[in-house]
Amino acid sequence: MPISNASLLYLQIKIAGDFMKEKEKEATLPDKKDFSEWYNELLQVAEIMDVRYPVKGLYVWYPFGFAIRKNVYNIIRELLDTDHMETMFPLLIPEQEFMKEAEHIKGFEDEVYWVTHGGTSLLDVKLALRPTSETAIYPMYKLWVRSHADLPLKLYQVVNTFRYETKHTRPLIRLREITSFKEAHTVHATWEEAAKQVNEAISIYTEFYRRLAVPVLASKRPDWDKFPGADYTIAVDALMPDGKTLQVGTAHHLGDNFARTFDIKYENPAGEQIYANQTCYGISERSIAALISIHGDNKGLVLPPEVAPIQIVVIPIVFKDSSEVIEACEKVSELLQKDGIRTKLDLSDDRPGAKYYKWEMKGVPLRLEIGPRDLKNNVAVLVRRDTGEKQQVPIDKIVHKVHELLKSIHQNLFEKAVTDLQSRIFTCSSLEDAKDKLSAGISLLPWCGEKKCGLQIEEKIGAGILGIPTEQKESQNVQCPVCGRDASVKVYVAKKY
Amino acid sequence: MPISNASLLYLQIKIAGDFMKEKEKEATLPDKKDFSEWYNELLQVAEIMDVRYPVKGLYVWYPFGFAIRKNVYNIIRELLDTDHMETMFPLLIPEQEFMKEAEHIKGFEDEVYWVTHGGTSLLDVKLALRPTSETAIYPMYKLWVRSHADLPLKLYQVVNTFRYETKHTRPLIRLREITSFKEAHTVHATWEEAAKQVNEAISIYTEFYRRLAVPVLASKRPDWDKFPGADYTIAVDALMPDGKTLQVGTAHHLGDNFARTFDIKYENPAGEQIYANQTCYGISERSIAALISIHGDNKGLVLPPEVAPIQIVVIPIVFKDSSEVIEACEKVSELLQKDGIRTKLDLSDDRPGAKYYKWEMKGVPLRLEIGPRDLKNNVAVLVRRDTGEKQQVPIDKIVHKVHELLKSIHQNLFEKAVTDLQSRIFTCSSLEDAKDKLSAGISLLPWCGEKKCGLQIEEKIGAGILGIPTEQKESQNVQCPVCGRDASVKVYVAKKY
Repeated sequence: MPISNASLLYLQIKIAGDFMKEKEKEATLPDKKDFSEWYNELLQVAEIMDVRYPVKGLYVWYPFGFAIRKNVYNIIRELLDTDHMETMFPLLIPEQEFMKEAEHIKGFEDEVYWVTHGGTSLLDVKLALRPTSETAIYPMYKLWVRSHADLPLKLYQVVNTFRYETKHTRPLIRLREITSFKEAHTVHATWEEAAKQVNEAISIYTEFYRRLAVPVLASKRPDWDKFPGADYTIAVDALMPDGKTLQVGTAHHLGDNFARTFDIKYENPAGEQIYANQTCYGISERSIAALISIHGDNKGLVLPPEVAPIQIVVIPIVFKDSSEVIEACEKVSELLQKDGIRTKLDLSDDRPGAKYYKWEMKGVPLRLEIGPRDLKNNVAVLVRRDTGEKQQVPIDKIVHKVHELLKSIHQNLFEKAVTDLQSRIFTCSSLEDAKDKLSAGISLLPWCGEKKCGLQIEEKIGAGILGIPTEQKESQNVQCPVCGRDASVKVYVAKKY
Repeated sequence: MPISNASLLYLQIKIAGDFMKEKEKEATLPDKKDFSEWYNELLQVAEIMDVRYPVKGLYVWYPFGFAIRKNVYNIIRELLDTDHMETMFPLLIPEQEFMKEAEHIKGFEDEVYWVTHGGTSLLDVKLALRPTSETAIYPMYKLWVRSHADLPLKLYQVVNTFRYETKHTRPLIRLREITSFKEAHTVHATWEEAAKQVNEAISIYTEFYRRLAVPVLASKRPDWDKFPGADYTIAVDALMPDGKTLQVGTAHHLGDNFARTFDIKYENPAGEQIYANQTCYGISERSIAALISIHGDNKGLVLPPEVAPIQIVVIPIVFKDSSEVIEACEKVSELLQKDGIRTKLDLSDDRPGAKYYKWEMKGVPLRLEIGPRDLKNNVAVLVRRDTGEKQQVPIDKIVHKVHELLKSIHQNLFEKAVTDLQSRIFTCSSLEDAKDKLSAGISLLPWCGEKKCGLQIEEKIGAGILGIPTEQKESQNVQCPVCGRDASVKVYVAKKY
């Protein structure tokens, strides 16, 4: 976990941790069983998002939340930068470009914000705030793609996008301004290469979520739930504590649909002009909603070490005459920080108990305590945030031990989440059975593949079909619970965010 | 110059360099003396910005331009992160908040974009696209600032902002979407502390520009040119090749003007509620316009090493039987990359001359060539982009030498720019004299301090008063060229972008 400038980060954390501390002291968190209340309250008291901005569906990143965002987006950038290039396109899309692709418009026309005025003048051409950037990017791809030698072209950007949501909005999950949309847009010579890229995108996202210690399920969305204008959509979902699934990433095979609309052609080696095939794939700050929701507990955040703004907090247990303890804490903090561990030394006047409370709320993976007796024995006490486990460690072995524990914490969080997810996927054969399991998690239900039956499954269960798992063995001797015919596939069914 | 992941970056550069190479080969650049044409053409052929997006004043970052942007913004983040925290506020500002501060509205009402519709519905409340974020941030500061212990509060964000420009737009310089606005907003207990922060901001910006090898002039803007709603404004300007100045950073003392409007109060130690004092300061992608314009030449970009996406390009000079040369180039590239130098090994089929041309256009600070004879002598040839100077260097001393030369290139670029700037500041005593000097650069002219005389200076010279230099010795025995009274100060006068 490399960091670019240890000393600077150290200082920054010092401030971020002290921000609004009065508030935190008073905070009490609802039980996580009341997930919705727990989530809303946690975002505020752990200083992730402030929901008090005076427009519905728009929220403010607290510095601490933003520091998590930075670490999370560094991971996705690192994964993409191996063979994608980062770029940036304009937010505003002229009406005529936005309206070019018929399916696409149908999918977005109800939720697009329109800029109609500049100053007091009415604009000649209305401008859409991008809900996603196909119609901003592809007029340029028409200019950029010339020859087969230009392909594949793989670009991405991290930008704000907008949806006029009429449903209930919720920070990080359902937003009118998605502040952190990472969208990739690729161009390929053939349909098959684009299909390969869609699979590659799903692999990247699965790895990305593994690094957030979040297991995800990949499935091919049913036709009526694919991206407007796509040939097909594969999505990854995380299972939230309340049993509902959260779509946390999507990858779309666009075929040559947009290429035909935006006239994106390349010359093949034989000199012919061929329409290109395209894909696009995106993730958003929902990734942060998922990691907070899945790992957090009744004491607050539990952050996977790689994205924690503070990886270890050092707390001196001081009585009178404690300058030696403080010196020892300073020395250890410096050693940790120098070794690339994001370290916070808490020398505030708060009682140790108040400090524990505060840094547990903030999800700091490790706490290190040194008291006078520890110092005499040349040891420190390390406490894990995930398990609460305490251990004495010789001070000269601290740095090594901390690295080891951070790794172990990540692994434990991921394994716990995987076990939890697996225990909440239920193989069902009837609609009743699936309906019973809804509040507990996800059902895996046979389906004949007909849209009519699919919609009936959704209606009768009162849930959504996520899709066909991307990794699925052939099912045999199972029947569609609606029509009774042989079902070639099983599909995930769940309540969805 | 640390980089986070050498091998990834290496790959990324490999792609970025090959993007649209067909185009580059055909490109010819106008002479830099025709600055405006040179600038526009260079942005396109060096792949900084594509100007062909179908809305006036909105441009597209090419991946190569975006890679420069990343490096530039890493520097400003590094400088701010020592005692500021990064955050992010919404883009959309409700009309009632936007309209609260009377001076501020007057300054922006003609150039604000308004969102009036969500889908096909008319919005209850019009939403402004932020032209700057005071009115988005300060309603939250009202909630966040409680006690003197919360102060100073120093936050910043890097976001897109919007201006409905009616003047001639120009990429990176005059935009309808400023894609990269870094705006800091601070809150202080007293007016004096806020004044100190404004000076601090100007120091940070001066250091930032020093790292781009761009010298800037700081001056206090005249009252009629300050930020709408501020007590005063100090700005930094760069001198462009065509003799016009470009405002590349501003810092505003807001007094308690916005605090009174947005009700931002803190409790002092005596228990009294006091209006806070505030500052804000910003820079934008104009920083990139300045560095490109000042350092570039007739062959293309000349990038300061710290912001160059590729710091050295390695080119094998191959004839037949050249596998040894290529191996040597690979080995050297690897060594350089491992030592934190952003290295591109160009093994394409282009002739060496075409490669020189291409990488000179892209501003790569150093070129390394190895041919069969060099290899026999165990040397390589290093060529500087800034001076064209060539030198033979023993292969085992390359890494050390490259570090040394990158430092020297930065220093040379900065010194050249400083010398050029100093030679184009003219101490004048009359309006005629100042007018004569306009096309060459900046005049320093006495001024009595009266607005009436100031406006006459501007009108008669046909230029703008930048302001009073922040570091100025008392002037004696000089007279205002308009009224003839004793002038206490001298001011910069120049044609402005």
